[in-house]
Amino acid sequence: MKYKAKIIVRLKEGLNDPEGRVIGKALKNLGYKIEDLKVPKYFEVVFESDKPEKEVEEMCKRLLANPVIHTYEYQLEPLGE
Amino acid sequence: MKYKAKIIVRLKEGLNDPEGRVIGKALKNLGYKIEDLKVPKYFEVVFESDKPEKEVEEMCKRLLANPVIHTYEYQLEPLGE
Repeated sequence: MKYKAKIIVRLKEGLNDPEGRVIGKALKNLGYKIEDLKVPKYFEVVFESDKPEKEVEEMCKRLLANPVIHTYEYQLEPLGE
Repeated sequence: MKYKAKIIVRLKEGLNDPEGRVIGKALKNLGYKIEDLKVPKYFEVVFESDKPEKEVEEMCKRLLANPVIHTYEYQLEPLGE
């Protein structure tokens, strides 16, 4: 069975997000009232699996996120077949 | 009023996504049956506005997305106050 996983990998609270800060500042300079801007990593993965939840967890832990500095969350949707 | 916008900026269909390809390949090498892996840009913006929809559209067009190569979508949620 095929699944699509949408995975968001965030920096843990308090860690430095320079990209977010720069983009937030640029938007402020354009006149918007930005209070916070974050740039998490975002992955959309289509894969085939019999145990999709287990495999997405593994992918996050083994490759996509670094548990020392990141938290992750995901949504899984079946694509059929 | 404060809002949170979750903005996804995707490369248009057919454009090269080397980061996605490399990560997809790495996951395949770890044994997963990856069919497709994309790495869109993802922004979470907290901002204050009287016309949030109009301003998010503007932010995308002026800074976050390049209309030549990107499409974008967003969700807006009110945060109150």
